[in-house]
Amino acid sequence: MKTTKAIIKKTNAPNGLALEDIPFPTINHNQVLIKVTKTAICGTDMHIYNWDEWAQKNINTPQIMGHEFVGEVVETGMYVTNVKSGQLVSGEGHVVCNTCRHCITGYQHLCRQTVGIGVNMDGVFAQYISFPASNLWICDKSISEDIHSISDPLGNAVHTALSFNVLGEDVLVTGAGPIGLMSVPILKRAGARSIVVSDINPARLALAKELGATATVDVRHHTIESAMAGLGLIKEGFDVGLEMSGNAEAFSGMIDVMANGGRIAILGILPQHVQINWDKVIFNSLTLKGIYGRQMFDTWYKMTALLQSGLEKEIAKVITHHFPYTQYAEAFELMQSGKSGKVILNWE
Amino acid sequence: MKTTKAIIKKTNAPNGLALEDIPFPTINHNQVLIKVTKTAICGTDMHIYNWDEWAQKNINTPQIMGHEFVGEVVETGMYVTNVKSGQLVSGEGHVVCNTCRHCITGYQHLCRQTVGIGVNMDGVFAQYISFPASNLWICDKSISEDIHSISDPLGNAVHTALSFNVLGEDVLVTGAGPIGLMSVPILKRAGARSIVVSDINPARLALAKELGATATVDVRHHTIESAMAGLGLIKEGFDVGLEMSGNAEAFSGMIDVMANGGRIAILGILPQHVQINWDKVIFNSLTLKGIYGRQMFDTWYKMTALLQSGLEKEIAKVITHHFPYTQYAEAFELMQSGKSGKVILNWE
Amino acid sequence: MKTTKAIIKKTNAPNGLALEDIPFPTINHNQVLIKVTKTAICGTDMHIYNWDEWAQKNINTPQIMGHEFVGEVVETGMYVTNVKSGQLVSGEGHVVCNTCRHCITGYQHLCRQTVGIGVNMDGVFAQYISFPASNLWICDKSISEDIHSISDPLGNAVHTALSFNVLGEDVLVTGAGPIGLMSVPILKRAGARSIVVSDINPARLALAKELGATATVDVRHHTIESAMAGLGLIKEGFDVGLEMSGNAEAFSGMIDVMANGGRIAILGILPQHVQINWDKVIFNSLTLKGIYGRQMFDTWYKMTALLQSGLEKEIAKVITHHFPYTQYAEAFELMQSGKSGKVILNWE
Amino acid sequence: MKTTKAIIKKTNAPNGLALEDIPFPTINHNQVLIKVTKTAICGTDMHIYNWDEWAQKNINTPQIMGHEFVGEVVETGMYVTNVKSGQLVSGEGHVVCNTCRHCITGYQHLCRQTVGIGVNMDGVFAQYISFPASNLWICDKSISEDIHSISDPLGNAVHTALSFNVLGEDVLVTGAGPIGLMSVPILKRAGARSIVVSDINPARLALAKELGATATVDVRHHTIESAMAGLGLIKEGFDVGLEMSGNAEAFSGMIDVMANGGRIAILGILPQHVQINWDKVIFNSLTLKGIYGRQMFDTWYKMTALLQSGLEKEIAKVITHHFPYTQYAEAFELMQSGKSGKVILNWE
Repeated sequence: MKTTKAIIKKTNAPNGLALEDIPFPTINHNQVLIKVTKTAICGTDMHIYNWDEWAQKNINTPQIMGHEFVGEVVETGMYVTNVKSGQLVSGEGHVVCNTCRHCITGYQHLCRQTVGIGVNMDGVFAQYISFPASNLWICDKSISEDIHSISDPLGNAVHTALSFNVLGEDVLVTGAGPIGLMSVPILKRAGARSIVVSDINPARLALAKELGATATVDVRHHTIESAMAGLGLIKEGFDVGLEMSGNAEAFSGMIDVMANGGRIAILGILPQHVQINWDKVIFNSLTLKGIYGRQMFDTWYKMTALLQSGLEKEIAKVITHHFPYTQYAEAFELMQSGKSGKVILNWE
Repeated sequence: MKTTKAIIKKTNAPNGLALEDIPFPTINHNQVLIKVTKTAICGTDMHIYNWDEWAQKNINTPQIMGHEFVGEVVETGMYVTNVKSGQLVSGEGHVVCNTCRHCITGYQHLCRQTVGIGVNMDGVFAQYISFPASNLWICDKSISEDIHSISDPLGNAVHTALSFNVLGEDVLVTGAGPIGLMSVPILKRAGARSIVVSDINPARLALAKELGATATVDVRHHTIESAMAGLGLIKEGFDVGLEMSGNAEAFSGMIDVMANGGRIAILGILPQHVQINWDKVIFNSLTLKGIYGRQMFDTWYKMTALLQSGLEKEIAKVITHHFPYTQYAEAFELMQSGKSGKVILNWE
Repeated sequence: MKTTKAIIKKTNAPNGLALEDIPFPTINHNQVLIKVTKTAICGTDMHIYNWDEWAQKNINTPQIMGHEFVGEVVETGMYVTNVKSGQLVSGEGHVVCNTCRHCITGYQHLCRQTVGIGVNMDGVFAQYISFPASNLWICDKSISEDIHSISDPLGNAVHTALSFNVLGEDVLVTGAGPIGLMSVPILKRAGARSIVVSDINPARLALAKELGATATVDVRHHTIESAMAGLGLIKEGFDVGLEMSGNAEAFSGMIDVMANGGRIAILGILPQHVQINWDKVIFNSLTLKGIYGRQMFDTWYKMTALLQSGLEKEIAKVITHHFPYTQYAEAFELMQSGKSGKVILNWE
Repeated sequence: MKTTKAIIKKTNAPNGLALEDIPFPTINHNQVLIKVTKTAICGTDMHIYNWDEWAQKNINTPQIMGHEFVGEVVETGMYVTNVKSGQLVSGEGHVVCNTCRHCITGYQHLCRQTVGIGVNMDGVFAQYISFPASNLWICDKSISEDIHSISDPLGNAVHTALSFNVLGEDVLVTGAGPIGLMSVPILKRAGARSIVVSDINPARLALAKELGATATVDVRHHTIESAMAGLGLIKEGFDVGLEMSGNAEAFSGMIDVMANGGRIAILGILPQHVQINWDKVIFNSLTLKGIYGRQMFDTWYKMTALLQSGLEKEIAKVITHHFPYTQYAEAFELMQSGKSGKVILNWE
């Protein structure tokens, strides 16, 4: 039997990964066969790796892992018209129902029947994968495969940063993880007047500065208000906020420093006990918007256009490590240590 | 000295109202003199009447009360060009700075320097008042003075109900107080497919039905979900929610029955301890928008257009009692009892 | 060989229709087989019937005609998941590429590769048809099949009427053909304050009035301005215009009576020589928006929601005649005479 | 009698300017007195100078000229609260009614009762002027007075360039006059993917390139299509167009190269005989939007934020000449020659 190598979560316990031979994928008339060239490790993968509460509830082992990838189309199903063999592709990790109101009106990211690749169905950490043609994004080959392999989190950053018009506005980003960092140059290219980034990690804040932040705040030592005062421009508070930390204090603190009419996009997953000052939300007419995934495929189009306009060189700085796929164990350990940005596995 | 009668909060204690002679108002070049014909009692007035915590913090006695009114212009300042003697007027109860970004870009309702008529400056519960010309709304005399006298809360309802496009959408309104009730026919005229109203007061729910609600839910006995099932149309949850109750359970329950991508406008003032399921906000991509006041004067224009289109006969049902101003004590007692809709004081 | 009856344009000359037996349709894995119950005759069908300049350029005979239909699904392809046998369906008459930017971001109606059913591929005037599953709309059986059979032009009306927010606005509709007429109750349900309809056909104007027009203007005898004066409300001109006539004078006249900042949606196909006062467009800050087709499937969703809210009884008035499909010749002759609204062919 | 110097159009014939002593301005309670430091010459001023058809119809001589200025507040009327003596100000040249629907809902630029400074009332080409406080914009002193003196045309460019969301979009600008040129760096800062500029003047096209245009087209020698092909990115046409030329061929040519769903903002004043292909507007679902003036004061706020973000250095390149006000004759002659960008008169 023809086989291909894949990284599989085997056991219902922390770690428990294995590189194994699995049956070579087959495709139906609406699918394509892809030779994977690069994959990246997501926070979701780390939840599965660590077998935390969420993973225990949502994952059935054995599970082929991963959803961040780039690869080459090597075969196309009979009904596939949107893509050809030889094209470089990445793809959306949410397989939607294509039937509900949201799916048929261009809002597939709101589908309730979403199935997650690498979560509820076979993932992409493999040499060859089959993939639904309607989930593919054809990559511009003038942009590096590294960047294409992190289309998924970059798409999160684009979706969040473009949730509100930021041209000429003052923006606060709480949390300088990979997605928070990627949002900085996007905000800048969208015309934000000032971008203040808060975190508790000096290295990440330094990178935020390098990526275009107007000011950074280490909230262990300084208040957001002090940064605002330093800038001078910000008289009444921030016009737009991006919550990227998942931290309760960061979020409730953000509510307090918004201008009247301010708009907040929330990507970070907040703890259940979070409490905010609802008087501020109501009397200051704030808007809070939950963000999940990315728009299929409006976000992908905008992401590509931004990359073609020069965003690539900035996003590249968020990728810190590469490993051959055979060294997946080291890669996951590094991610676990928190001492990396995005980590990429090479499959060829 | 020429005088006029006014209702004044005299003492730093519950009740403590008095009808007294005050100096007849004078006007500057940018103000007008108005002969008040009708005023209405607002929830804010009841806070002052009851001398609750909010009132103790915000009110300096003696305070001329009230901000909901209609009256006739009897004199105009030298620089006033927007209004003439003889015109019927109501007016916006928020006096803004006219200098900040929000004020000069058409978003005066977001001004941080707002001063409240009847709260931080002389109110309108008087026979004659002076009023800034730029805060006036010229009334269409084909609409009754009763309706004009409640322009302020009707404006709240219009502002909230039009916060999101509801044409063809399924809408949940939590809270059937006067503003919640007024929102029902507005939603209907804006094309909502279904309007479900929840409360714990059967009389109010019956009025909601009369005003056009598709279904009502007495949440002491039934769940919102049961009403949804009864309607059949609502497959994935409500598209739009209007929080009009200020009740923590109503609000957190609303979060749970929204469709993905649902939008909630929050007018009710929520208690500080409210907790919601933030996972639903984030993973279901909900939008929460705090609402305060009304747009000057976009809301007033839309409100007038709706009244001219027939809304008047529905809004009239929310007005339940009239008193001559001399019986202000009975009027406030009735409001206090909770056994009324809007209560109007006649000044002539 | 199994066959089915179909109405076919046979000759490159006016009329030239025939009812013939054609091979019974087969379906692929992504298609469904539909038993047609009702079809309606569109203006496009009349172009083909009359073999006018447009038809000569675009149609290859023999051509199975028609794109307005309703029917029952009797078989589904192996990959079809959005629809089941026994469901009542109508469908979008534009088959799009599903690959271009517009198609993959929810704007399929903007696809440049559109192929027209009944124009560039087999039409629906047949007892049985095969149809791409992704083009189907599942019909609410509580709404009559007559109405579903005219989903296509009703969708045009919905798409045009909802192009701009009309709540509280004054709207001018030039042209009271079937689509112009259908737009009237839609505008009313969307909250328009006044709706003025112009045409030169008294019967159509009378029907516009019955469907909810605030005023009608027979432009052979009166000016639009006179209607505006009669209404009193309209001080500066119309806020929104719907051009439904395809008449140069109607369109240029509309430009002249718009309020500053007015918005015009153009559905009528204008003659090439049309000239307008561009100074009015520029100095009065007008917006002109060309409209084609309808949004897949946002317009269909909104259309259904409106029908479920009561629009059905109004739209029914635009359907004036029914024929069995065997009397197709009489049906086309009646359409040709201009003495009908929508004409429906029954297939069972 | 105290006097001040002013540049006045004296005669109903070409040229006919004079520098004369006029009575020193007085202010009312709502006005301020301004010591003018710099003014700039606008195309409108050239119409008056040349006494063309438009000027003959609209101007009553003698007319104090000019509306582009910057200066220092030296006295404020009794009711003025938004500005103080010593502040640097520019101002909006349209004095509006403050009473109509547009004025009271934040859309003063749509007011029908607009009076033009330097056109229908005294202009700003003078040492001292009185000015309505509500028309003032307080300038950020960290930006040069040169730039503030051209706030009016820069505002036109900002208003036009921000009419549609251009992030990631391909934009065509027809016309590389001062406003067309200024729009280029604004589009870039708003995130446009590509900006193609067309004109027939090589010097202006070279400056467009320097200001950030992706490509330029001298339409005497090349077609727009050739530039599109060269870029590679633009597959279906331009997403957004800015008509800045007032040239009929440029405008009708733009219609032909737009993508389906494309949006065009029209600032250039088009000749009356212009004809366009309306089939393209309708079948390709184009939007055409007339642009006049600028939003009070949203455009001014965005303009300032853009300048504070670095736009200043690019806009400075559009200013080519300075003259002391006493050499106004040379300045107007230079403007007349067409061999300049913006020309500034210094008043101190």
